[in-house]
Amino acid sequence: MLRKNYIMAPGPTPVPIDILLAGAKETIHHRTPQFLEIIEKTLEEAKYLFQTSNRVYVFVSSGTGAMEAAVTNLVNPGEKAIVVVSGKFGERWKEICQAFGIDVVEIALEWGEAVTPEQIEKAMKENPDAKVIFTTHSETSTGTVMDLKAIAELTRNTDRVLVTDEVSGLLAEPLKMDEWGVDVVVSGSQKGIMMPPGLGFITLSKKAWALVEQNKCPKYYYDLRYYDKNYPDNPWTPAVNMIYMLNQSVKMLKEEGIENIWNRHRVLGEATRAAVKALGLELFSKRPGNVCTAVTVPAGVDGKKITKIMRDKYGVTIAGGQEHLANKIFRIAHLGYVSLFDSITAISALEFTLHELGYPVKFGEGVKAAMEIFHREGVAG
Amino acid sequence: MLRKNYIMAPGPTPVPIDILLAGAKETIHHRTPQFLEIIEKTLEEAKYLFQTSNRVYVFVSSGTGAMEAAVTNLVNPGEKAIVVVSGKFGERWKEICQAFGIDVVEIALEWGEAVTPEQIEKAMKENPDAKVIFTTHSETSTGTVMDLKAIAELTRNTDRVLVTDEVSGLLAEPLKMDEWGVDVVVSGSQKGIMMPPGLGFITLSKKAWALVEQNKCPKYYYDLRYYDKNYPDNPWTPAVNMIYMLNQSVKMLKEEGIENIWNRHRVLGEATRAAVKALGLELFSKRPGNVCTAVTVPAGVDGKKITKIMRDKYGVTIAGGQEHLANKIFRIAHLGYVSLFDSITAISALEFTLHELGYPVKFGEGVKAAMEIFHREGVAG
Repeated sequence: MLRKNYIMAPGPTPVPIDILLAGAKETIHHRTPQFLEIIEKTLEEAKYLFQTSNRVYVFVSSGTGAMEAAVTNLVNPGEKAIVVVSGKFGERWKEICQAFGIDVVEIALEWGEAVTPEQIEKAMKENPDAKVIFTTHSETSTGTVMDLKAIAELTRNTDRVLVTDEVSGLLAEPLKMDEWGVDVVVSGSQKGIMMPPGLGFITLSKKAWALVEQNKCPKYYYDLRYYDKNYPDNPWTPAVNMIYMLNQSVKMLKEEGIENIWNRHRVLGEATRAAVKALGLELFSKRPGNVCTAVTVPAGVDGKKITKIMRDKYGVTIAGGQEHLANKIFRIAHLGYVSLFDSITAISALEFTLHELGYPVKFGEGVKAAMEIFHREGVAG
Repeated sequence: MLRKNYIMAPGPTPVPIDILLAGAKETIHHRTPQFLEIIEKTLEEAKYLFQTSNRVYVFVSSGTGAMEAAVTNLVNPGEKAIVVVSGKFGERWKEICQAFGIDVVEIALEWGEAVTPEQIEKAMKENPDAKVIFTTHSETSTGTVMDLKAIAELTRNTDRVLVTDEVSGLLAEPLKMDEWGVDVVVSGSQKGIMMPPGLGFITLSKKAWALVEQNKCPKYYYDLRYYDKNYPDNPWTPAVNMIYMLNQSVKMLKEEGIENIWNRHRVLGEATRAAVKALGLELFSKRPGNVCTAVTVPAGVDGKKITKIMRDKYGVTIAGGQEHLANKIFRIAHLGYVSLFDSITAISALEFTLHELGYPVKFGEGVKAAMEIFHREGVAG
C-alpha cells in the first residue's frame, strides 16, 4: 500500500504548501528597503499570535536559542531564579540557568504533573530575592499544560517576572500575554506557527525590559539590546526566506483567527483523548493539554515498536517518550497545521498498529469516539 | 475547523508534490538534444504502464483528444464501428464517431451495466463489416468495469480492432495490453498517472497500425502518422514541463510496481464498497470497478447537498452523478495517488455529511468496515 507521510509529532509539524512556496522565492539582500518593509510588517502582525502589543523579536535559532535569550537577558550569574521542572523542557530551563551560573530554585515535580499556583506562591514567598520565574506552559515531554493564567495572576502586580516557554504551546493553548500579565514569552517556528524549524521568538513586557537593560550576564548573539536597537531589522543576518514564510504563516493564522485556532487544538485534543480512552488506553498526564496526547504504553506491548510501525508502515510520525519515559509512553500530537481527518488518520493507524502488536482492538472504536467528539463540538456531522 | 483539501473524484486526482516540483523546472526548448533525451526515455518507460512493447504517443490534449485520435485514425467516414454505450464515456465514443460521419452500431446498455462478451460477440456476428470496436474499460460515470480480458479473447485472433478507453481505468484496473491482445488504448494524465490534466496518450498494436496507414478520415493535429514519423519527438510543440512531470510519475509508478498499484486500487475499492454497504447504502453499479464507487443517493436525502457539504465543509471533493443520474448517485473515487487513510478520510466525511442531512448514521460504522477490509487484505493491522 502506498505510504503518505503525516507528521503527528509535537514539532516539527506539517507545513502548508503555501508557506513552503512562500519560502521558495528569490533571496533578496537583507539590508534593503524591500526586505525591511517585509520584516517590519511581518513582526508587527506577529504580535497577534502572542496577543501582545510588545515588540516580537525574531532569532535565527531553534526554540532553545530563544530560551537561552530569556535566561541570559533577565538573570545575572549568581542570582536566584525559580524554575519549574516537570519534564524535559523544564529541565532545559534548569540546564541553561546552570550553564550561566544562575542559582536555581527548583520546583521539582513528577513528570506528568502540572505546577499549581500554590506551589509557585510558596516558592515566591520562600525566595523573595528570586525575581524571575521560568515555566513551561505546555510541557511537551509529558503532554501536560499548566494554568498559566492563574500563575500570571500571582506575579502581575509584583516585581516578579514570569517567563513562559511557549515553544510548543503557542497557538495550541490559549495565551493572552498582555491581558493575563505574562512577562516573557519564547517560542519557535516549527509548531503552531506551521513553519519549518529555524526561527526563535521572544517578546517581553516593560517590567521584563527593565531587567534586560541592567543585565550583565555574558552574551552576544542573544543580547536583546542589539535586537531592540535594530528592530525591526535584525542585528545579524536574518533568515530572509524564513521571514517570507513567516509573513505567509501570519497571514493564514490571522485569517483563521486566534479563537478558532485555540478551539481547533482543544477539539482535536479532546477527540484524541476520547479515542485513546475508547481503546482502553491510559493518558499519562495528570493535566493533559492540547499540544499532544501522551499515552501510557499498555502492558505487554513494546513501546518502541508502536512509534516504529506507525512511522515505517503507516507513514504517521508520532513521538515516543523522552529520558526515563522512553518506551513507557507515546505521544500523538495535534499541533499546528492539523485538522480532524489528520487526527482520524492517526487514530486509525494507532488501532492497526496496536492490533498488530497483539493488543486487543476492535477496529474503528477509537475513530468512532473521536468522531463523536467532533460531532458534539459542532465541527462535523 | 481548518479545512484541508482531498481530491476523491475520478479525475483530476491528487498530484504528489514530487511530480508538481518536477514540473516546476526551467522550460527548455523542445528541439534540443537535451529535451529529446528526456522525452525518449520517458515514453520508453511509459510502455510499462500499458504493459506493451508498442510505442506510446503523447498528445497535448485531454483524454477526449486521445479518443478522437483513435476514432479518426482507425475508421473512415461512412464505415461502420461497434460502440458500447453504457454511460457518459461510451456516449462520448458515439458522439465522436458521429461527428466524423461514422456509422455507429451501438450496443446500448442501461447505465450501470457492463457489456458482456456475448453482447460483443453478437454485434461482431451481425456486423462483419464493422472492423473497429470502441469500449470503455472503466465507465467512470457509473463506477463500472467491464471484462476487457474476456472481450479481447474474442477479437485477438480476428481482423477486428479492439479499442478501449483507459482514461480513468489505466493503473486502477489490471490491463495487459500485449498479453491480452488489446489493440488500441487511450488514456490521460490526470488519473492513475497522478499528474495534472494536460496530456493524452495512445498506443496501438500492429493490427491497428495497418488501419491507421490506410485511413482517410479528415484530421491534422491527431494524425498519428506525424507522431510516428517524429517519435519520440512530438510533431507539434510538446508540453515540455508536463513531460518532466511524466518522467517523474513513471519513475514513481515503476518503483511502486504495477501489480502493487493494481492491488492498491482493488483494496481501496473493496474497502470503500464495504464502508458504503455498512452505512446501509446501495451501490449503483451492477459490476463495480476500482476507479470510483458509485452510490445511490438514499431516499429523502438531497444528492446535490452530499457533494456540496463534502467539498465545502470537509474539503473532500467527490463527484455527483452525470446527465440523468445527477443528484441520483454520488461517486467516491479511489484513483491515483490515494492511500488507505485518504479513503478513511472520505468515508468519515461521508458519515458526517449523511448524518447532517438526516440520514441515520452510527459514527464510525463505515470506517470500521473499511478498516476490517484493510486488515483482511493484509495491508494494515
